[in-house]
Amino acid sequence: MKVSKRGAVPPFYVMEVMKAAAAREAAGRKVLHLEVGQPATQAPAGVLRAATEALQTQRLGYTDALGMPELRARIARHYRDFYGIRVAPERIAVTTGSSGAFLLAFLASMDAGDRIALGEPGYPAYRNILTSLDIEAVGVPVGPETRFQPTPEVLAGVDGNLDALLVASPANPTGTMIDTEAMRALISYCDGNRMRLIVDEIYHGITYGGPAVSAASLSDRVIVINSFSKYFSMTGWRLGWMIVPEDLHRSVECLAQNHFISPPAHSQAAAIAAFDCIDEVEENVARYARNREILLRELPKAGLTRLAPADGAFYIYADVSDVTDDSVVFCQRMLAETGIAATPGIDFDPARGHHFVRFSFAGATAEIEEAASLLRNWLN
Amino acid sequence: MKVSKRGAVPPFYVMEVMKAAAAREAAGRKVLHLEVGQPATQAPAGVLRAATEALQTQRLGYTDALGMPELRARIARHYRDFYGIRVAPERIAVTTGSSGAFLLAFLASMDAGDRIALGEPGYPAYRNILTSLDIEAVGVPVGPETRFQPTPEVLAGVDGNLDALLVASPANPTGTMIDTEAMRALISYCDGNRMRLIVDEIYHGITYGGPAVSAASLSDRVIVINSFSKYFSMTGWRLGWMIVPEDLHRSVECLAQNHFISPPAHSQAAAIAAFDCIDEVEENVARYARNREILLRELPKAGLTRLAPADGAFYIYADVSDVTDDSVVFCQRMLAETGIAATPGIDFDPARGHHFVRFSFAGATAEIEEAASLLRNWLN
Repeated sequence: MKVSKRGAVPPFYVMEVMKAAAAREAAGRKVLHLEVGQPATQAPAGVLRAATEALQTQRLGYTDALGMPELRARIARHYRDFYGIRVAPERIAVTTGSSGAFLLAFLASMDAGDRIALGEPGYPAYRNILTSLDIEAVGVPVGPETRFQPTPEVLAGVDGNLDALLVASPANPTGTMIDTEAMRALISYCDGNRMRLIVDEIYHGITYGGPAVSAASLSDRVIVINSFSKYFSMTGWRLGWMIVPEDLHRSVECLAQNHFISPPAHSQAAAIAAFDCIDEVEENVARYARNREILLRELPKAGLTRLAPADGAFYIYADVSDVTDDSVVFCQRMLAETGIAATPGIDFDPARGHHFVRFSFAGATAEIEEAASLLRNWLN
Repeated sequence: MKVSKRGAVPPFYVMEVMKAAAAREAAGRKVLHLEVGQPATQAPAGVLRAATEALQTQRLGYTDALGMPELRARIARHYRDFYGIRVAPERIAVTTGSSGAFLLAFLASMDAGDRIALGEPGYPAYRNILTSLDIEAVGVPVGPETRFQPTPEVLAGVDGNLDALLVASPANPTGTMIDTEAMRALISYCDGNRMRLIVDEIYHGITYGGPAVSAASLSDRVIVINSFSKYFSMTGWRLGWMIVPEDLHRSVECLAQNHFISPPAHSQAAAIAAFDCIDEVEENVARYARNREILLRELPKAGLTRLAPADGAFYIYADVSDVTDDSVVFCQRMLAETGIAATPGIDFDPARGHHFVRFSFAGATAEIEEAASLLRNWLN
């Protein structure tokens, strides 16, 4: 019986790391989890209260395909409160995680055979979702010279036509952000070349210098994607949102009806309370900031001196080429010999990732401190 | 800026009906809801208790892409308890509603340009999801002569090659089921023609004669899709599952990692308790059975004598060609003049649906009784 070619997407290498880490723990040995891409914390207390109340008071049936009107309105208000910009609630589509938003954005804006540029290194699911939809993901190598982000100059050097560009700010795995000037340049380049621009803003709120600029404040032609998973610490709730340009609104709504019926009702009812829990989630961000300081101070002492600027998110993408030629083997040995789990760069950059490792600092500070110390001893 | 062709899927007409019904209610007038495709009830009490407890005791982060192991094991046990068959937990993929299962099944088994046969009338999202993925949905007209289900003879008459067949039992909108003999014939036909068979079993448990036969009891090459939405009355929880043939397991797992990360954690934690709430959900089924009796008795008195056999699900698909040539206008007038909302057949069968109306009897018995009486007066 036929198995499709489009379904032959590669697994994430981090899954292998997690399996090895679980085996080590099952054998009674300690693991320091610097491989995981999610907060160690539960959802904020106010979200849990709202969720409990919704179980008692709501039927929790299907909602509107684009989400509960109250939640769409609350997200719109968040843009006023956080960024000082007006976004009409009608432009907000609540989605089943940012994952759901990516599917809708890709299907609404691109046909099979279209080509979209992605910076490499980047979040691997972008490429895999696109491949499964027969959209060509054109990897654009980016490095420290452009702060690991595509620029108009980099894009101008790509062979062949491009229909779209996807960027993330802050990015995974590098944490680098696109500032206002650079974002304006990308918007202008995309407008001039009739390219659709999709901006992944799921790590917004988790930043260490200034706040991140939202592409929504610079253009209403950009597809902006965000999520409750990271800043609001609600990964398992599978809830995100998208700001939809007017020309895609009808497609996105009809695609959402057919592909999802609606996002999870219970998560929606709870998420309305998330925006009133800023103090609690800012405590998480303060912890990430402490963890980040520790790694930025200690990794160079361990001999890892070339680190991507972690402007935001909770990752440090380290160039490990001084100590290894193969980050997969490096991560295996590090786990076996120190108990530190981290993700080899090949998940994010098949071409050059064997020289990089991603360290996540979303965990507890004590764990990060211990890992830094162990790593320093191990590498020296 | 480009808008894709694949995203130009049609909206559901029932959305227009729901809008008109909401406008009528907003004007203070009564609406009898026979248009909705979901139970009027909340999730079972045991599910709500488990959900409340999970909020207090679990982190609710990402789960395995194919679902929590305990839930997969519990679903496997359900096959033993309900059907007396063994299904290994490893073959169960927990999905984000049956919607998520359809996306994974289609992507794992078919490439762009492949062709899949669907009985018409049928659930409209099948066709729309397929179209958005560049898979050709080949509508196969079926009627009362084959109990509104495809048969090997019907399939043999289709022009061109077919790569797959999708059937639903019980079906939406007709409620008709495929018995063991007919299912065996379809499996054999698909095996003989190297066609992948996908069977939608989301209305299993809601049946009025004998129990529905699961295709899983007849073949391990079939993709079987089910859901917590209907029998377990958990639509908004967005949780379903799929029994995955061995040759698709790897694709489905990798696609699920990339497209969904994981199904909603909270829904999974709660759904484990659903299988211990059979008494409560059977009370719902008993109510549907009473409602069905009322409509089967009263609709003919209103002049609607040609009704699809409602073996299962909670719909009656009525041939209204004796009273109208245009079911859209018929439904508009019926809502305006009687307050009864129902779905015109064009959502399920663009070609012949203007002669059909779907009446849902998932609501309260008093509402169904009132609707039957009003309809009888209105049509006579």
